[in-house]
Amino acid sequence: GRPPGHVPRRRHVRALPRGRRRCCTACSPAPSPLTAALCPGQGTRDHPPAQTALRDRLLSAVVSCFKRHGAAAIDTPVLELRETLMGKYGEDTKLIYELQDQGGELLALRYDLTVPFARYLAMNKVTNMKRYHVAKVYRRDNPATTRGRYREFYQCDFDIAGQFDPMIPDAECLKIVHEILSDLQLGDFIIKVNDRRILNGVFAVCGVPESKFIPACSTVDKLDKVPWEEVRSEMVGEKGLSPEAADRIGEYVQLHGGLDLIERLLQDPKLSQNKLAKEGLGDMKLLFEYLTLFGITEKISFDLSLARGLDYYTGVIFEAVLLHQENEHVEEAVSVGSVAGGGRYDGLVGMFDPKGRKVPCVGVSIGIERIFSILEQRLEASGEKLRTTETQVLVATPQKHLLPARLKLISELWDAGIKAEMLYKKDPKLLKQLQYCEDTGIPLAAIVGEQELADRVVKLRDVATREQVDIPREKLIDEIRRRLEP
Amino acid sequence: GRPPGHVPRRRHVRALPRGRRRCCTACSPAPSPLTAALCPGQGTRDHPPAQTALRDRLLSAVVSCFKRHGAAAIDTPVLELRETLMGKYGEDTKLIYELQDQGGELLALRYDLTVPFARYLAMNKVTNMKRYHVAKVYRRDNPATTRGRYREFYQCDFDIAGQFDPMIPDAECLKIVHEILSDLQLGDFIIKVNDRRILNGVFAVCGVPESKFIPACSTVDKLDKVPWEEVRSEMVGEKGLSPEAADRIGEYVQLHGGLDLIERLLQDPKLSQNKLAKEGLGDMKLLFEYLTLFGITEKISFDLSLARGLDYYTGVIFEAVLLHQENEHVEEAVSVGSVAGGGRYDGLVGMFDPKGRKVPCVGVSIGIERIFSILEQRLEASGEKLRTTETQVLVATPQKHLLPARLKLISELWDAGIKAEMLYKKDPKLLKQLQYCEDTGIPLAAIVGEQELADRVVKLRDVATREQVDIPREKLIDEIRRRLEP
Repeated sequence: GRPPGHVPRRRHVRALPRGRRRCCTACSPAPSPLTAALCPGQGTRDHPPAQTALRDRLLSAVVSCFKRHGAAAIDTPVLELRETLMGKYGEDTKLIYELQDQGGELLALRYDLTVPFARYLAMNKVTNMKRYHVAKVYRRDNPATTRGRYREFYQCDFDIAGQFDPMIPDAECLKIVHEILSDLQLGDFIIKVNDRRILNGVFAVCGVPESKFIPACSTVDKLDKVPWEEVRSEMVGEKGLSPEAADRIGEYVQLHGGLDLIERLLQDPKLSQNKLAKEGLGDMKLLFEYLTLFGITEKISFDLSLARGLDYYTGVIFEAVLLHQENEHVEEAVSVGSVAGGGRYDGLVGMFDPKGRKVPCVGVSIGIERIFSILEQRLEASGEKLRTTETQVLVATPQKHLLPARLKLISELWDAGIKAEMLYKKDPKLLKQLQYCEDTGIPLAAIVGEQELADRVVKLRDVATREQVDIPREKLIDEIRRRLEP
Repeated sequence: GRPPGHVPRRRHVRALPRGRRRCCTACSPAPSPLTAALCPGQGTRDHPPAQTALRDRLLSAVVSCFKRHGAAAIDTPVLELRETLMGKYGEDTKLIYELQDQGGELLALRYDLTVPFARYLAMNKVTNMKRYHVAKVYRRDNPATTRGRYREFYQCDFDIAGQFDPMIPDAECLKIVHEILSDLQLGDFIIKVNDRRILNGVFAVCGVPESKFIPACSTVDKLDKVPWEEVRSEMVGEKGLSPEAADRIGEYVQLHGGLDLIERLLQDPKLSQNKLAKEGLGDMKLLFEYLTLFGITEKISFDLSLARGLDYYTGVIFEAVLLHQENEHVEEAVSVGSVAGGGRYDGLVGMFDPKGRKVPCVGVSIGIERIFSILEQRLEASGEKLRTTETQVLVATPQKHLLPARLKLISELWDAGIKAEMLYKKDPKLLKQLQYCEDTGIPLAAIVGEQELADRVVKLRDVATREQVDIPREKLIDEIRRRLEP
């Protein structure tokens, strides 16, 4: 197909048939060609309040898991020096957004949160850190918005940096993926696990020269999308491996299982002779031991076809995928790929250190946009309406000329920390005010009319039951607090 | 001086004297010239955990005020089409970061959150909305990091869009500024208020031609930094106003006061004849009435020198400044300018609508980076240490070969929603584990040794008091929850 990023300029306007103009799949058809200019850039989108509320709920579930595991938050700039990002992403380097040279430094938008984290560690000489970072990253990829793939999207990363005993932090990363996917009730899932050292060992014993490990790796990575025959022909054709080597690789990379498979491969006459593979298999065995103690091996699959695209992984790698399931509520299920992934990258920090000092790291990234697509579709199907505000009380008046009374009362509520709104009209009709409560889910209305002012009370109305009682003005705030208690 | 943005390339490396290399004021001196490349871009910065924790606390105070006033959150992309941003910021347009043309659309980084909000309203045909947005914006300005001025920084915006009765939403924006600055205990402050219509009326009655209103406005805006004489000479010199016009303007723009001043100007023989000024003064009087009901006029100053830089304001404008105060804890006070500002912009949405339909808007932006600088300096001076994690329990073992016991117990705690950590070592010393609690502020340690395992108990230790008791394993989670209750 077309190389990613090579989109003819202003295609989103020209390519549209007459009468049905829209900028991109993210925005609705617009009546005038002029409005096309209003669209946010291709592959990006606005989040209206309902989506933002859902996304905030999702992000806070992820963040609370990261905090449960003792991570601290850091923040790094969206703008990185170009040279910081170059040579870290293999083929995907062409997907980096570069800023125009307007004088000053040459800048680019961050492509992920991992490389900035490694830069941060090296620059600050931090050798030991457990951090999370939830922020947007940028990729000039071909957007596939229906599958939750955008050019601007959130990443939720948790990483453990430091020299520790083997597989303890790695096991915690997998536990985190398990906790998050279980918490969010996304349905059945499996976490595939492999190790770059095992893969490299496989390539070595199958007769692949070391210079071709990385290309072979990126070809193996396609096994979850295309059948072995296609992968084999790419290996022999594009990547220049011998047919015999490809066939030998094929025997290994189609294996998956659990502890039994690890034991079998540890006995494998060829693989057990390879130092890298032996190390990787030994650690994989240890990892499974720890995951057994965590009680999560049921969802873990040691899968030799898992390779992961990025160059910087050096040890354990993993990827969580949702298993297909029938969903009675959703007519057409969102097709999603992996919803979480990560691995060990022991060499990346050293690339930024002038003396090459290494800081071993392992981390996980939650594919929040894909999960968001699923939850959004599920919410839509359920017909449930998410509140977009948290307003507790609407301050209302039943007669004219009472704006001062409303302003005075609402100011008292705000100062007491109560979430309150009023309509921005001098003399709104009471019905309109109550309708606003029902439309936006405000549970209480505090009504001040002439009689209430004279009696020094406020009529407190429960919007759902329509019950209302007079509350002495000085007791109003306590009464509202009491009613809003969970 | 040098025009903003024209920074010679790689100046941050070359300009450094030998032996004391650092990339920018944000990062510490580095021992090797190589590490200069590790610095984030000029005028941007990393936030380490302690700063991120402080900033999160600050942002959540601001957001909770916005929510108290019934605002919904939206999110728009950092990348906007270049044409969306052009022609909205007057002279400051040159400070917009543009992306390189890599094929596809011509993009730029957003300069503020107001223009994207107006684009959002027009594109989605929203005519009525109260929203907040907390996000980063980008300006290729000369950074002044000690004064909290960066090239990448957070904005916290609250805006009310819609056709309403005059001054009700405007008054709420001022109430919000008052609440936030009071809540954050930043010391004494004043909120200056003016109206673009009054300023334009002043220019008109002083004999300034309409084409010079905007240039005159941006000159008046400098009155808070330079004396009147300098402003006057810029008006006459650069802006080409007549000396008589400038002198007449000078008489007005040096006025400030309250209701009394409004009344006086309403009686002003010249100003009261100008339609715009009369409208503006009438609304200003109404605004003061509402602010009196909110009880906040004490902090409000009607100040004719306030002009605000941006072109898009059409009515009320305001700006909050902290008043100088002696601070016994801080040796050298951070010099900050305005900490909040905003105003009414009734024409901006219409610029994005193909039929020019207007949606009146008023909004406020909290200058979070400046406030952050103050709070950071205050925290440093106080010596208080902010916790960067929320971990409640450290799972520890007192003897060797007990890693499985730790993994099993911590997994139970995580599954119960308790925030727990353990050291990533097979056999850490108990002292090291307890030291870690003290260093990072973890209040409890759950210790499992051989004896505890045999007795089916866990030793729960209060890190501060050093008291420890055996808790039956099945009661541990309840006991931890009980102890952590606020």
